[in-house]
Amino acid sequence: MPRLTFGRDIVASKPCAALGLRRAPACPRVAPGRAEQQPRKHLEPVHVAQAPLSSSTTTNGTHSAPAPVASTSSRDASEAAAASALSANLLLICPDQKGVIAAVSQLLYGFGCNIVASDQFTDSSSGMFFQRITFDFSEIVIGPGNTAVLERAIAELANRFNMKWKIAYKNKVKRMAVLVSKQDHCLYDLLIRLRSGELRCEIPFIISNHPDLKHIADTFNVPFVHLPLDKNNKEAQEEALEKLIKEEKIDVVILARYMQIFTQGFCERHWEHTINIHHSFLPAFEGARPYHRAHERGVKIIGATAHFATAELDAGPIIDQAVARITHRDNVEDMIRKGRDLERMVLARAVRWHLDDRVMVYNNKTVVFED
Amino acid sequence: MPRLTFGRDIVASKPCAALGLRRAPACPRVAPGRAEQQPRKHLEPVHVAQAPLSSSTTTNGTHSAPAPVASTSSRDASEAAAASALSANLLLICPDQKGVIAAVSQLLYGFGCNIVASDQFTDSSSGMFFQRITFDFSEIVIGPGNTAVLERAIAELANRFNMKWKIAYKNKVKRMAVLVSKQDHCLYDLLIRLRSGELRCEIPFIISNHPDLKHIADTFNVPFVHLPLDKNNKEAQEEALEKLIKEEKIDVVILARYMQIFTQGFCERHWEHTINIHHSFLPAFEGARPYHRAHERGVKIIGATAHFATAELDAGPIIDQAVARITHRDNVEDMIRKGRDLERMVLARAVRWHLDDRVMVYNNKTVVFED
Amino acid sequence: MPRLTFGRDIVASKPCAALGLRRAPACPRVAPGRAEQQPRKHLEPVHVAQAPLSSSTTTNGTHSAPAPVASTSSRDASEAAAASALSANLLLICPDQKGVIAAVSQLLYGFGCNIVASDQFTDSSSGMFFQRITFDFSEIVIGPGNTAVLERAIAELANRFNMKWKIAYKNKVKRMAVLVSKQDHCLYDLLIRLRSGELRCEIPFIISNHPDLKHIADTFNVPFVHLPLDKNNKEAQEEALEKLIKEEKIDVVILARYMQIFTQGFCERHWEHTINIHHSFLPAFEGARPYHRAHERGVKIIGATAHFATAELDAGPIIDQAVARITHRDNVEDMIRKGRDLERMVLARAVRWHLDDRVMVYNNKTVVFED
Amino acid sequence: MPRLTFGRDIVASKPCAALGLRRAPACPRVAPGRAEQQPRKHLEPVHVAQAPLSSSTTTNGTHSAPAPVASTSSRDASEAAAASALSANLLLICPDQKGVIAAVSQLLYGFGCNIVASDQFTDSSSGMFFQRITFDFSEIVIGPGNTAVLERAIAELANRFNMKWKIAYKNKVKRMAVLVSKQDHCLYDLLIRLRSGELRCEIPFIISNHPDLKHIADTFNVPFVHLPLDKNNKEAQEEALEKLIKEEKIDVVILARYMQIFTQGFCERHWEHTINIHHSFLPAFEGARPYHRAHERGVKIIGATAHFATAELDAGPIIDQAVARITHRDNVEDMIRKGRDLERMVLARAVRWHLDDRVMVYNNKTVVFED
Repeated sequence: MPRLTFGRDIVASKPCAALGLRRAPACPRVAPGRAEQQPRKHLEPVHVAQAPLSSSTTTNGTHSAPAPVASTSSRDASEAAAASALSANLLLICPDQKGVIAAVSQLLYGFGCNIVASDQFTDSSSGMFFQRITFDFSEIVIGPGNTAVLERAIAELANRFNMKWKIAYKNKVKRMAVLVSKQDHCLYDLLIRLRSGELRCEIPFIISNHPDLKHIADTFNVPFVHLPLDKNNKEAQEEALEKLIKEEKIDVVILARYMQIFTQGFCERHWEHTINIHHSFLPAFEGARPYHRAHERGVKIIGATAHFATAELDAGPIIDQAVARITHRDNVEDMIRKGRDLERMVLARAVRWHLDDRVMVYNNKTVVFED
Repeated sequence: MPRLTFGRDIVASKPCAALGLRRAPACPRVAPGRAEQQPRKHLEPVHVAQAPLSSSTTTNGTHSAPAPVASTSSRDASEAAAASALSANLLLICPDQKGVIAAVSQLLYGFGCNIVASDQFTDSSSGMFFQRITFDFSEIVIGPGNTAVLERAIAELANRFNMKWKIAYKNKVKRMAVLVSKQDHCLYDLLIRLRSGELRCEIPFIISNHPDLKHIADTFNVPFVHLPLDKNNKEAQEEALEKLIKEEKIDVVILARYMQIFTQGFCERHWEHTINIHHSFLPAFEGARPYHRAHERGVKIIGATAHFATAELDAGPIIDQAVARITHRDNVEDMIRKGRDLERMVLARAVRWHLDDRVMVYNNKTVVFED
Repeated sequence: MPRLTFGRDIVASKPCAALGLRRAPACPRVAPGRAEQQPRKHLEPVHVAQAPLSSSTTTNGTHSAPAPVASTSSRDASEAAAASALSANLLLICPDQKGVIAAVSQLLYGFGCNIVASDQFTDSSSGMFFQRITFDFSEIVIGPGNTAVLERAIAELANRFNMKWKIAYKNKVKRMAVLVSKQDHCLYDLLIRLRSGELRCEIPFIISNHPDLKHIADTFNVPFVHLPLDKNNKEAQEEALEKLIKEEKIDVVILARYMQIFTQGFCERHWEHTINIHHSFLPAFEGARPYHRAHERGVKIIGATAHFATAELDAGPIIDQAVARITHRDNVEDMIRKGRDLERMVLARAVRWHLDDRVMVYNNKTVVFED
Repeated sequence: MPRLTFGRDIVASKPCAALGLRRAPACPRVAPGRAEQQPRKHLEPVHVAQAPLSSSTTTNGTHSAPAPVASTSSRDASEAAAASALSANLLLICPDQKGVIAAVSQLLYGFGCNIVASDQFTDSSSGMFFQRITFDFSEIVIGPGNTAVLERAIAELANRFNMKWKIAYKNKVKRMAVLVSKQDHCLYDLLIRLRSGELRCEIPFIISNHPDLKHIADTFNVPFVHLPLDKNNKEAQEEALEKLIKEEKIDVVILARYMQIFTQGFCERHWEHTINIHHSFLPAFEGARPYHRAHERGVKIIGATAHFATAELDAGPIIDQAVARITHRDNVEDMIRKGRDLERMVLARAVRWHLDDRVMVYNNKTVVFED
């Protein structure tokens, strides 16, 4: 039986927040201290975001009590049971090299963990290796309360393989803020899917620059925060939003047809956990009024795209897309109507996958381990 | 029973070739003599193309003997029988107005024709009315050999309603030139569909700037014309092509991954009957290497677009589009492979519809009465 | 200009309720008195349903005041405006014959009506002709308050062509009862689409055999009627339902995952205006637990089917179907989750088409003139 | 570094041919000698098929010289290069248990092999674990000519985990027999894809009970074997087929619209490597004339299904399915035409996946690790 020993020093490789590896243009430079480390092929180190996105990892070996799950549908009782069990998702990115899979699976096996699911991908163009492992640690040999020791071992191994990693415990339910404007269909859809148990998260509040959709928030008993926006208060409004994200320990931000553009600074701080739905098949019809322009061009398909909201408009990593056939009979209103179905389905899939730690980003593209 | 009488003069409204109504930018000016006619709402007169595209209309009341149908599959015997019957497609475009449908259907009924199928569309944004009528004239009261009289009546009526029209007799099989380069999949596909009876046309020859695909032409017993192309002979090569189109009375030109750009003059003369297949969902990834750019952008769908080949690259009226889902696992080669299926299906549909007079063009968009 | 004269007697051909032409096995025999009429090719006469489904036609030339439209979204203001205009849908079925189109369009033109849209289909296997005409009668020569005269003319013409017909005025909003059990996704979806203006109807109440979904009805301010069902009260419960349908002048009944089977008598009285959603691609997996059986069989696609609820279980005329790809990774719960999206989209499309008079039934199959 | 030692006896767990684990009803009993082995949970031992399907595994450590690849398109040069490299696919099925992944990846790593791709699946309903590993053994520590030693180690490990396994070396090109009747579209499609390099196999001959498609075989320079079939010679014809399969060392049999039913014995011997294309979305419309029955039922989608040809008609494990929307306008001939595109695409995908060792069978269902 192989044994693994751990070195004394395990500070070198910290878990990264959202495991996003950024392109140079849209990203801040890395802290100078880290630049002196060994050179990394195609890989820029990632700073830990200031928003409390790393709350899923523990620093003292004890878990914070999991928040109550907002989705309580009885039909997902078995899934909920599985989720409350002691399992976690481990995400990895590293340069492709012999022995990675063996080392990781051996480590988990050595600790007495059981790999429940595993998905992996080697990108031949960049030479990078991506893996998502779901493992059960209820029989972990060091006791399930001591996952910090497991994390130290992973950090050690990550250091050896020049690996970025992230661990997400399933009993830590993510907190999701939904931002809307006046369109209601995506908001309705997310709330209904939350109720039905399709989305594992809490929604502490809905934010809007308009008061129009408050009645929906009321209907579903979710607090509604009205942050009005005009030409003169853009910065102040964004600060208020930033404060809410921080204070309420928001993990994920959903732009459910919010239709506003953030400052570059906000995008750079939050894009890794901010998902936008755009109502076209990108990269066609970026920007405003895509259905009008699609009608003008005479296309025979319309689409919708869920993507991370980087600073460059509608140019962030694409998570999912869908399209529908149209004909000459469809005018702009028909496109808008048919597009609503696309938008809510695509957004829901992207949100579900992100909440379930299935989306990894590299070179402004996503690796999505679909369920 | 209403009766229709015909005026003496029927020269005013000529049948137009491909019934394309052009946008100003991409189109040649109209001959000055016609500009003095009554003003037409949103409607630019269309000159009759010099290529023999109007050969489906008769000028002296007698039909040229139909060419032998190239598609001879027994499985389409019944369809072939229907096609050889005395039927025709009548296409109309005019400003929307009361009484058009009644007048046209009454005219055909008055002549003893039977409307077999009819499809129509009113474009509310432009106020134009489009109709495609398939009618059987085997019991026409003036005798099936005298359709010229019917055409004169239609011309009269067209004059009254400011109508563009075109008639295509089903026993006149269209002649289609296929242009290829080195990619074989679309060529194979068209030839197999022709053999199976899916496409009603003759293919008198295949043209290529490379000799690579001659073996396929040989396989299917179609003459292969090699028109080499280099920096210095572009004009001469296009002239040779033009000459072939004219001498062989070509009705339709298919760019089956021909990958060459024609001169503006050629496009302006031929776009209405020239169909190109582009390997992306336009307007995304116009121009060269769309799969490479799709891979670079990280899209989750790829597509193909069949469109009329106007002078502006990949900006002509779109006839059909299709897409397929891809994932991060698909590299450029996978996209190319999966795209081949899209390209050949989309091109085949567009060709079939065009051959069956189902595609009308207005404002750089198509009205497609699908089968 | 042709003129039409009307005969004195216009009782022969009544407008039929839902324009359904039934198969022998699932249908009641026709009243003997009508059997003495002239023989009809392939066509069984249809009795007028006892439920108030013909309320869209007037008998004395005056319109009942239209009920307030339940869908009030501002985004559909223009469509609502169009709907309140004086327009109507005319549906026709008759044996295919020369001159029908000319006669009908001439009749409407003669009255000063404008044909806004027209769709037609000739079924070569049965020899029947189907047409749906949308016309504007705001400039009708007899005055828009006298459509009864128009109807008499249509009845006359219908008699001549052995035609079944139905007219639906757009300012008469249909009343739709929604029946549910414990599943909420289709109910939510219909209510949200109603609010957004996608569905033109009123929902006077929601009926369920269980109290579980009352909170949704409350949320959307729709009365909730609980009609409990057990082994011993099946007939009484159905009578209560029947009474509600009659008293509330219900035009359309939607089984939004109601999961109960009606008596044969109820189906025979109501199938023409009762739409069920079945969670499989019929005819595969008729009856109970289709997802479980699909999983057991190892299919690679799942589907949903909207159909009219005839007496034979899941065998009624199919209005629409949709499918989604699945893989070996999808267990029954995943199928149920993914299927919910199919069910609500397919049901919504079928309901929308039916409300917009786009669905005709013949030989247990539908002709759907899609929008 | 962990070390693996090999026991002396490695006969217990033989590689299975196609890794199919059969349902009881359709399968022959297992040879008695093996029943005395240790009991296996949910797992019936699989006998090695008599057809030379296990030729991809070696028994003496030397590889037979790989046959020349029939697909020679230059566009797949890089893929061809990869294929000729020293890589292999390892397929595994075993009861789910801790440590399997670690043990297998450790074994390959210990030998100096590099895991290029890995896909896995745990079926929670049966408790079985499935894995497909592609590994490069060009740097194997024992030398690439000695893979027999690696196979002994795998057999040892398989014994420990009660594992079924199969190894397929990429330089061993599979030999595929194509059986056809009179329909040509699937045959054309397979041959064109072979030429384009999409399918990695050799086609030594095409077999038909009719002479009609010989011209296609001639076109592509593939021998054509005419095995006429009538009421009286069914057994003899099947024997001739069986002899061909054996003598020509056929690995895969494709029924490309062969339309004939084999005897139960033939199916039981060959179903694991025999793929049929059925022209409906199974389980709907099993058996004859599915398009006619689909038209009769009035469905709104048609489909095609590729499946293994077990003894029960159209009930074998489904590999892939696809559908297309149709409308009331599509008559049976239209369905047949549109269905041809579905049939050839679905069959091509299934064949490609099977040739690339991506399909595993368990409980009459497939696990397909799609590319």
